[in-house]
Amino acid sequence: MSKGITSRNEDYSQWYNELVSKADLAEHSAVRGCMVIKPYGYAIWEKMQAALDQMFKDTGHSNAYFPLFIPKSFFSKEASHVEGFATECAVVTHYRLKNDGNGQIIVDEEAKLEEELIVRPTSETIIWNTYKGWIQSYRDLPILVNQWANVVRWEMRTRLFLRTAEFLWQEGHTAHATSEEAVEETERMLNVYATFAEEWMALPVVRGRKTENERFAGALDTYCIEALMQDGKALQAGTSHFLGQNFAKAFDVKFTSKEGKLDYVWATSWGVSTRLMGALIMAHSDDAGLVLPPKLAPIQVVIVPIYKTEEESRQIGALADNLIAQLKQKGISAKYDDRDTQRPGFKFAEWELKGVPVRVAIGARDLQNGTVELARRDTQSKETVPQTGLAEAIEQLLITIQENIYQKALTYRDAHITEVNSYEEFKKVLEGEGGFISAHWDGTVETEKRVKEETKATIRCIPLNNKEEEGTCIFTGKPSKQRVLFAKAY
Amino acid sequence: MSKGITSRNEDYSQWYNELVSKADLAEHSAVRGCMVIKPYGYAIWEKMQAALDQMFKDTGHSNAYFPLFIPKSFFSKEASHVEGFATECAVVTHYRLKNDGNGQIIVDEEAKLEEELIVRPTSETIIWNTYKGWIQSYRDLPILVNQWANVVRWEMRTRLFLRTAEFLWQEGHTAHATSEEAVEETERMLNVYATFAEEWMALPVVRGRKTENERFAGALDTYCIEALMQDGKALQAGTSHFLGQNFAKAFDVKFTSKEGKLDYVWATSWGVSTRLMGALIMAHSDDAGLVLPPKLAPIQVVIVPIYKTEEESRQIGALADNLIAQLKQKGISAKYDDRDTQRPGFKFAEWELKGVPVRVAIGARDLQNGTVELARRDTQSKETVPQTGLAEAIEQLLITIQENIYQKALTYRDAHITEVNSYEEFKKVLEGEGGFISAHWDGTVETEKRVKEETKATIRCIPLNNKEEEGTCIFTGKPSKQRVLFAKAY
Repeated sequence: MSKGITSRNEDYSQWYNELVSKADLAEHSAVRGCMVIKPYGYAIWEKMQAALDQMFKDTGHSNAYFPLFIPKSFFSKEASHVEGFATECAVVTHYRLKNDGNGQIIVDEEAKLEEELIVRPTSETIIWNTYKGWIQSYRDLPILVNQWANVVRWEMRTRLFLRTAEFLWQEGHTAHATSEEAVEETERMLNVYATFAEEWMALPVVRGRKTENERFAGALDTYCIEALMQDGKALQAGTSHFLGQNFAKAFDVKFTSKEGKLDYVWATSWGVSTRLMGALIMAHSDDAGLVLPPKLAPIQVVIVPIYKTEEESRQIGALADNLIAQLKQKGISAKYDDRDTQRPGFKFAEWELKGVPVRVAIGARDLQNGTVELARRDTQSKETVPQTGLAEAIEQLLITIQENIYQKALTYRDAHITEVNSYEEFKKVLEGEGGFISAHWDGTVETEKRVKEETKATIRCIPLNNKEEEGTCIFTGKPSKQRVLFAKAY
Repeated sequence: MSKGITSRNEDYSQWYNELVSKADLAEHSAVRGCMVIKPYGYAIWEKMQAALDQMFKDTGHSNAYFPLFIPKSFFSKEASHVEGFATECAVVTHYRLKNDGNGQIIVDEEAKLEEELIVRPTSETIIWNTYKGWIQSYRDLPILVNQWANVVRWEMRTRLFLRTAEFLWQEGHTAHATSEEAVEETERMLNVYATFAEEWMALPVVRGRKTENERFAGALDTYCIEALMQDGKALQAGTSHFLGQNFAKAFDVKFTSKEGKLDYVWATSWGVSTRLMGALIMAHSDDAGLVLPPKLAPIQVVIVPIYKTEEESRQIGALADNLIAQLKQKGISAKYDDRDTQRPGFKFAEWELKGVPVRVAIGARDLQNGTVELARRDTQSKETVPQTGLAEAIEQLLITIQENIYQKALTYRDAHITEVNSYEEFKKVLEGEGGFISAHWDGTVETEKRVKEETKATIRCIPLNNKEEEGTCIFTGKPSKQRVLFAKAY
């Protein structure tokens, strides 16, 4: 098949757009800013969901479902939350359409809502309004709930997966009796996200905290995981917020402690979204197409027959069936691509484009020799191997590929963390290779904002377990006690 | 615990409402008509989803995701669909809120959408508009796609699970090259739903077709499964629609056939929703609370310790841990309720209310005798059994319970299908026991509507494989060739 993807070097952004489209992951819909996630893209998202969901359950969480709509007045209740979220939202004002008599559908102006409803941009408000009814005493705590849902933020500039008006995500919302317990939960979920990114997505991440300026609206502390894309830009892959008692106060949620004291409940929230799809694609893929870590690949192995005669086709088919059955027993998903409408070369290119980790090609000579051709997507290398023990070899190879993809991304990431000690150096790295820039900062919002204005770089995070180090802010020269990570970001 | 549920005989409707609330399944939210599905209720829904999703995949379908919003103009495109769906919908007209300067959030009137967006009540229109870009030739067919999503229909009278403004569902949307293939798909998915209802929900269903009057808006044929609740009312549990070429014509979706001919694509759609939760609850539960079929119970076995001393507590705990490990190996979920804040009697009542199929109680005497007390939720019976072989006994008991719950519902259902041959008889049964009433009907919409006006009974379906039988319409006396099933319905 003709791929014709722009190369990464030529135009990284264009490469990404074309890849998302040509690998059948997603496309723009008729509704501005809203995407269609196509079956192949959604199958990857389902694998992400399944892994994350199991990790949430293993850490004691249950799923629930809260309303899509939030009464407008709820947004006035938590002051800082208003600023962050109650702006670019979809607003429902009417509840009925009617026929205008000429076959056109119009809004029935008489069916106007008394109070406008906001399509949830995030659910803290509606959930804490609900928790009020669930919590009376310390016996009702903790509440450890997660929701898989769609949310809407009316973004003006959208990009598939990375920034869309509607996106899919999960949002955890927990309620605790003490501040310590809530902080512990915030950190636990950050670690769940980091483990998922590294072990499933093969994506190395920096665990850190956001500066005050970059915090979630309504949070006392925002933890994040930050990943590096191949163009040297950072991508925030997940956040976990310690919300203190802000939402409990806004919605009057109190509990009686063991000692009989009445106090407000402590909260956390944490989320990852279909944005992870963007991170996955951008972190590993190459000019030939998608590169998927085996653990998240919907199809882990594709088998392509190369034959001239019916008899060869029959023999290869029997071999493929047998291999697929063996792989299935090992929990490995394999597809036999026996389409007679396409040539092998077309199929090779198509599965390469779609990032299938392992390709098995079987031809007439292989039948004679008892071999197959085994190709790796990650290294684009291939070798001839015996049919005997093939399923075991593939099982091992998938583990090797998963590890190799991670190591490659890690090597790249580590090579792109640059310590700088002056603003000149800072700008030079930014305009050159990019990546994370580790620099001293005076700790003020003002400096952060000015650096952003001048360079578009933001403080991605203050890494956890950062070493203390005396220094001077690269921008103001004022004293600083630790380095933070700057980068341009998605 | 004090349950205080109204009995079914006293007030069936009230019994249902209280059960949904007290068993922690769902509750009303601050948004009119929208529900909160609580963790215990959602856990049942997740089990339903998992089983259905696997059945969809086993029949060749993939999941995808389409936008929440539909441009208003799309609803004008398919004439009969408009009538059915483009009326009671949530309409998004604005995309921004702002602060009025006094801390109140108001709608920014300047941020008005050029074209209003409708929150999807069902997705045929947006999906067929998308399929237009996916289909050129017969090689692109069939498309077998399903979506798990939330939808909104602005219902005025709502009841938890049964009828809510927002609900969760799956909607399958398939595209085919021939009418025959689409009809086959429509029937295949009806059978999937029927199998799921009977094997998982333990809910016997009648498979049938809707009359013209009750068809889905835009469908040429609507197949359905109909179940009977304990109050003698029917509940439509799932529908599968043959849409003909209606949506392909409305959105101009054509394909080139193998023979090079251009033709419109054939369509089906099919769906089940959180309404199934209502059916599950109403079909099996009793005055003591929920009765869950083991296959859908989030907790299949609960173990309650009864002890006086620390040593007894320790010994029972060890026994419980061992049993849970054995059950887990068999894929059975068990919970050890060792709360020290509640007495055994309270726990018994709580787990009975929540419908846990099997309860194991272990007391001091059981420690001495090497026994436990094993109680069944479905029959409310209990017996003392040996600890040896307990896991195997429970595994077998769960199968027995699943089957018993189904048989009980089937016996009830079959006892409530009444053949009548006059309108007098018809009304007598309706006002008495209710249930399905099998009667002759002249086949006209007018008669159907008049019967509904006079009795509130509707034609639930024309059963598949209905036997031909000459007769006369109970209402008009006109000739009829087969009986149809009438009932009052949810």
